[in-house]
Amino acid sequence: MALHGGTGTILPGNPAAEAGYRQEMIASLNAGTAVLEAGGSAIDAVVETVRMLEDCPLFNAGRGAVFTEDQVHELDAAVMAGTGLQAGAVAGVRRIRNPVVAAAEVMRAARSVLLGSDGAEKFARSRGLALVEPDYFSTPHRLRQLQDLRAHDTNAQALDHDAPAEGRFGTVGAVARDREGRLAAATSTGGVTNKQAGRIGDTPVIGAGTYANDRSCAISATGTGEHFIRACIGHDIHARMVYAGLTLDEAMAAAIAEELAPIGGRGGLIGIDFGGNIVMQFNSIGMYRAWVREGDGPETAIF
Amino acid sequence: MALHGGTGTILPGNPAAEAGYRQEMIASLNAGTAVLEAGGSAIDAVVETVRMLEDCPLFNAGRGAVFTEDQVHELDAAVMAGTGLQAGAVAGVRRIRNPVVAAAEVMRAARSVLLGSDGAEKFARSRGLALVEPDYFSTPHRLRQLQDLRAHDTNAQALDHDAPAEGRFGTVGAVARDREGRLAAATSTGGVTNKQAGRIGDTPVIGAGTYANDRSCAISATGTGEHFIRACIGHDIHARMVYAGLTLDEAMAAAIAEELAPIGGRGGLIGIDFGGNIVMQFNSIGMYRAWVREGDGPETAIF
Repeated sequence: MALHGGTGTILPGNPAAEAGYRQEMIASLNAGTAVLEAGGSAIDAVVETVRMLEDCPLFNAGRGAVFTEDQVHELDAAVMAGTGLQAGAVAGVRRIRNPVVAAAEVMRAARSVLLGSDGAEKFARSRGLALVEPDYFSTPHRLRQLQDLRAHDTNAQALDHDAPAEGRFGTVGAVARDREGRLAAATSTGGVTNKQAGRIGDTPVIGAGTYANDRSCAISATGTGEHFIRACIGHDIHARMVYAGLTLDEAMAAAIAEELAPIGGRGGLIGIDFGGNIVMQFNSIGMYRAWVREGDGPETAIF
Repeated sequence: MALHGGTGTILPGNPAAEAGYRQEMIASLNAGTAVLEAGGSAIDAVVETVRMLEDCPLFNAGRGAVFTEDQVHELDAAVMAGTGLQAGAVAGVRRIRNPVVAAAEVMRAARSVLLGSDGAEKFARSRGLALVEPDYFSTPHRLRQLQDLRAHDTNAQALDHDAPAEGRFGTVGAVARDREGRLAAATSTGGVTNKQAGRIGDTPVIGAGTYANDRSCAISATGTGEHFIRACIGHDIHARMVYAGLTLDEAMAAAIAEELAPIGGRGGLIGIDFGGNIVMQFNSIGMYRAWVREGDGPETAIF
């Protein structure tokens, strides 16, 4: 199992801040691996891990999400199970406490795969999911981030890795393989600071920021979402494995170099293949990430 | 250039109704080919064709769109240019007269690729696009369709081809190759009758219902959208051409048989490849379609 917390670039040489992130990542990873160790499914494991990352204000998902140009939060999330290609996603939601839990509920119980804004909230309410006031997601740090950005240019957008700072970082996601060989991916995000009202990024787009297929791999992405959508990055990695015979490591490197980089995309990806191999690559300065293999202890890395 | 008007199943043996559809398809196709003949781009041609199909109440896009479970219209549209992988899309819009024009404007002028509901309308207004009252899209036929369906089962959904009738049919889309070899695709839809509030189908999902890449092909889809999203059908056809060396014809057949059919997907696809070859395939009873090759006259088919 592996997780990412975005491609933020906390400045190297800040061990206290780094330790906080590492601690939160390990706690979230442990929650997911506990599901797997109890015989649970890959999809339940990634949802549990991402749910914890959403609740942690350090990351740009759920509580601690960035603000849009209208100074509100619009959250995206998706899940995909590689067995049977089941998927669920929500986009632009403002009141669902845990968007990843709603995405999983869409997968299990909705007549749709992708539900937007008010409709997604109507569905979440009908399923008894926790709703919150919109300001539940707000943190002083994210508000300053918006105000600082807009003071210079009201049309500017910022990913966390655009401005190295001792701040809070990144889209979150997880991938897992369970003991039955089932793969799953989950991703959740607040998007980019000062994003256009209604902007939907790559996270809830199946085949872009989130993808899983037991024949190949499970993928979760973080970065400049528009480029990830145009590159169909998640499905492209799958396709290079299945149609071109590449390994996950080769496929991810090729997708970044040949699809993402030529159109200007920046960010990172985590993936796990049908054999349990974990691959994490990025073309940004760093990517918050943690991973664990059966029988080993959890590990973390940033740069 | 080619277009589709959905995989509706107007009953065979109704020549008067069929003639009306064929006439509208040819007029819309001619509008697009006029753009190409004047030296215009593939993207401008597909937008012009789809815009005309949106304005025609016979098809399930723009005026004549189906109703959601809340008895409103929520429209999706996307465009993609195969040169540089530029893309734009809108989802769940209620007041934009021509969603495909808004998608093209997102591609050209927005900071985003995909804009949802209110945010998309805010953007459209800021760009001076035509907005209408929500009931502009309503037609008595579509209202009856919703009421008939809900009378039997409030959770039922219907694609036009679920219930053969002398009705109005289908998602619309177009693909084109211009004289400079540039490919483009555009798709627009009202979705499925009685769809969940907020449901976003495959149409605005780049790589699912709409995809274009000058290295391979341009694709526009129509059918059971959730399956098309899960299969990443547009990008899958591209990937089979580029990574597995298939022709467009082979790639589309394989994608339908190996990706879509196993998960229960039904519908059809139109595509054009880098050499100008047009391919149209479906696993439903019929698909409204029209096409033209340089130097030939337009042709149409339904079954």
